Amino acid sequence: MFEQLILGVDPGVASTGLAAVRGGGQRAEVVWSDTVRTPAGLAEALRLRALHEAIAAALATHRPDAVAIERLMWGRNTGSAMGVARASGVLLLAAAEAGLPVSEYAPLEVKMAVAGSGTATKADLRRFLGMLGISGVPDQPDAADAVAVAVCHLTGAALRAATGAAR
Amino acid sequence: MFEQLILGVDPGVASTGLAAVRGGGQRAEVVWSDTVRTPAGLAEALRLRALHEAIAAALATHRPDAVAIERLMWGRNTGSAMGVARASGVLLLAAAEAGLPVSEYAPLEVKMAVAGSGTATKADLRRFLGMLGISGVPDQPDAADAVAVAVCHLTGAALRAATGAAR
Repeated sequence: MFEQLILGVDPGVASTGLAAVRGGGQRAEVVWSDTVRTPAGLAEALRLRALHEAIAAALATHRPDAVAIERLMWGRNTGSAMGVARASGVLLLAAAEAGLPVSEYAPLEVKMAVAGSGTATKADLRRFLGMLGISGVPDQPDAADAVAVAVCHLTGAALRAATGAAR
Repeated sequence: MFEQLILGVDPGVASTGLAAVRGGGQRAEVVWSDTVRTPAGLAEALRLRALHEAIAAALATHRPDAVAIERLMWGRNTGSAMGVARASGVLLLAAAEAGLPVSEYAPLEVKMAVAGSGTATKADLRRFLGMLGISGVPDQPDAADAVAVAVCHLTGAALRAATGAAR
C-alpha cells in the first residue's frame, strides 16, 4: 500500500497547529505534533519570523511528502483573518522553500472528509479521528485540527489512487 | 538634517511595488524603484517564494533604515485581499529577517500625508509627489504607490523628530 507522510497545518499568528501524519489506505498514525505559539507582545513581523523558523525546522526534521493547510474562511473572524492570512503566506513560503507541494482545504472539506458532515464540531472531529483508528491525536485543539487537515489530504490521495487504479 | 533611506512597499502576489526613497526635512528622492511581477500560472506558494527572494535582494542591496508597507484595507476587493495579506506576511517576514523595523500605513494615511486629502486619487498622489519636489517617481502605478508609502513614513518621521526637538 502506498503510504505518505503529510504535514498538516492549522495556521495562525498566535498559535499554529502542526501534525505529521503517516497514512495510506485504511490506517493513519500521528508521527509528531506540536503547537507553535508566538508571544502576543512581539511585533507581528517577528512573530511571523518565529513561525517561519518553526515550520522550516519541522519540514527539515520530518521530511513530509506534502503539506496540507487549512484554508482561511473569508468573512469570518475578520479581526484575526488578516493574521491568519499572513501566517498562511509564510507557511506556503516555507513549503515552497523546502520544494514541497502544498494543498489547501476549506474547513468544510476537512469536516466532510473526517466526520462525513459539514456541520461537525471540533469535538465531533476529534471523536471521528478516534473512530478512524488514528493513534496519537494530540489534545491541543490547533494541533488536533492539523491532524484533521492531514487526514483530509490522505483521504483525497487515497481516493485519487483508487480512481487511478480503477481506470 | 537627519536623513533616512526607506523602502516603501505596495504589496500584492501578482505585482508588488518597491521604492527606496531617501529623505528628511524638506526633500526626498527616489534612489531606486521596481515592480516585482510573478507569473499568473505559477502556484501561489512559488509566487510567494519569488516575492520573498526579490524583497530580500532589494533589502540586501539598498540597506534601508526601515520598511514602510501599505496596509490592506479589509472588506474591499475580497477576491484579491487574501493574496495581498499573504504577500504582506512574506514582506513582513523578509523585513524581520533583515533585522529592520516595519511600519504599516493605511491608504487613507498615505493619501493624507502626500496629498493632504483622504479622497485623493492615484493621479492626485502622483501630482503631489511631483509638487513635493520628489525626483525619480516611477511611472508604474504600484512602484509609484510604494514611493507614496515611503514618503508617508518620512513625513511621520520628520514630524516625530520635530516634536522631539520642541520638547
